[in-house]
Amino acid sequence: MKVGIIGGTGDIGKGMALRLSQNHEVIIGSRKEEKATLSCDACCQCLRELNLPFNLTSSTNQGVVDNSDIIVFSIPLETLQITIDSLTGLEGKLVVSLMNPMERKDHFRYAPPEEGSAAMQLQKILPDSKVISAFNNIPAKQWSQMSEILDYSVCVCGDDEEGKKIVMELVNSISELEALDAGPLAVSATVEAITPLVINIAKYNSMRDVGVYFR
Amino acid sequence: MKVGIIGGTGDIGKGMALRLSQNHEVIIGSRKEEKATLSCDACCQCLRELNLPFNLTSSTNQGVVDNSDIIVFSIPLETLQITIDSLTGLEGKLVVSLMNPMERKDHFRYAPPEEGSAAMQLQKILPDSKVISAFNNIPAKQWSQMSEILDYSVCVCGDDEEGKKIVMELVNSISELEALDAGPLAVSATVEAITPLVINIAKYNSMRDVGVYFR
Repeated sequence: MKVGIIGGTGDIGKGMALRLSQNHEVIIGSRKEEKATLSCDACCQCLRELNLPFNLTSSTNQGVVDNSDIIVFSIPLETLQITIDSLTGLEGKLVVSLMNPMERKDHFRYAPPEEGSAAMQLQKILPDSKVISAFNNIPAKQWSQMSEILDYSVCVCGDDEEGKKIVMELVNSISELEALDAGPLAVSATVEAITPLVINIAKYNSMRDVGVYFR
Repeated sequence: MKVGIIGGTGDIGKGMALRLSQNHEVIIGSRKEEKATLSCDACCQCLRELNLPFNLTSSTNQGVVDNSDIIVFSIPLETLQITIDSLTGLEGKLVVSLMNPMERKDHFRYAPPEEGSAAMQLQKILPDSKVISAFNNIPAKQWSQMSEILDYSVCVCGDDEEGKKIVMELVNSISELEALDAGPLAVSATVEAITPLVINIAKYNSMRDVGVYFR
């Protein structure tokens, strides 16, 4: 399974690349190819030091779209439209959203777009792609700490049942993450809203890197 | 701590009465006193059979308001206004909402009132009460199964910090529940929405009585 990460040079993107490249062919994408190369080199160096096998390359975001089966959008929602406007060929592709739009006032608040959620906005912008939401509530710092086992529950939402199954398999292939079918894409609003909730819980209860388990 | 349960004859209300009456003075309330008496008798019978100590009585809903320090609203949101219209003396009281408004279409959906959440609506109707939301995501059936240990995370939201602390202590006094300060009352919208989410997760993943853990 070829997985490309749009916005693969951010903290979560790099962590995903480190984790996924054990079992999948992964492409780190960025608007600027040099940035993707630098990020990829750092990840490869890290994985070599850990004596882990990996299959990891870099490319522009367009290269990610052209060469991946699954395309993960790991970018802030604010840059979504401009990023997609710069790309072609997303029709028919399996697209994963892990975006969690939020704003900070006295506490973090979920700030969904008018479509209802970030994933639903992505589906509206890309009506011919299969949009699936996943990976939303995993603490950002945990992704790249390769010594940490990730054993969280991961809600997967989407209207394309086959695409959802593929993404659930992708989730289950990482560390000890447990994919859960959370229903149609509309449910992504609730799942995205859990991210500011866990950040607040960490702050108010002096906890660190709070994740979610449904059991 | 005297705890009164408005709607104490429903499944969750009865379960709460069973669990809370070990460590607190609990009053089961109902619109009709006979119904509250019947429910209370059944709970007392159950607790005697388990050889557990308890302090449990029954009353009308108005009796609950008159004689409790903490008043739990365990009723459907649809009956909230009519219930409150029939009561006096709620001003200044500590009031707990565990209501989760939802509707069922192909899946369960969170259906908040225009105030943003059930707890926020309760606060609007009772501007002079201290409204705290808690206990929202505990699987209904688990409440009354006294053989089951409840070890879920319980998000507690509210704008009155002292009231929130008292309710968190109440949560922590039940089985092995873990109260978490989830921030102001506005956050209750996210917490209430988790209830239809866990019901859907149970259905779609062939699980039973799914609860939430934040760790």
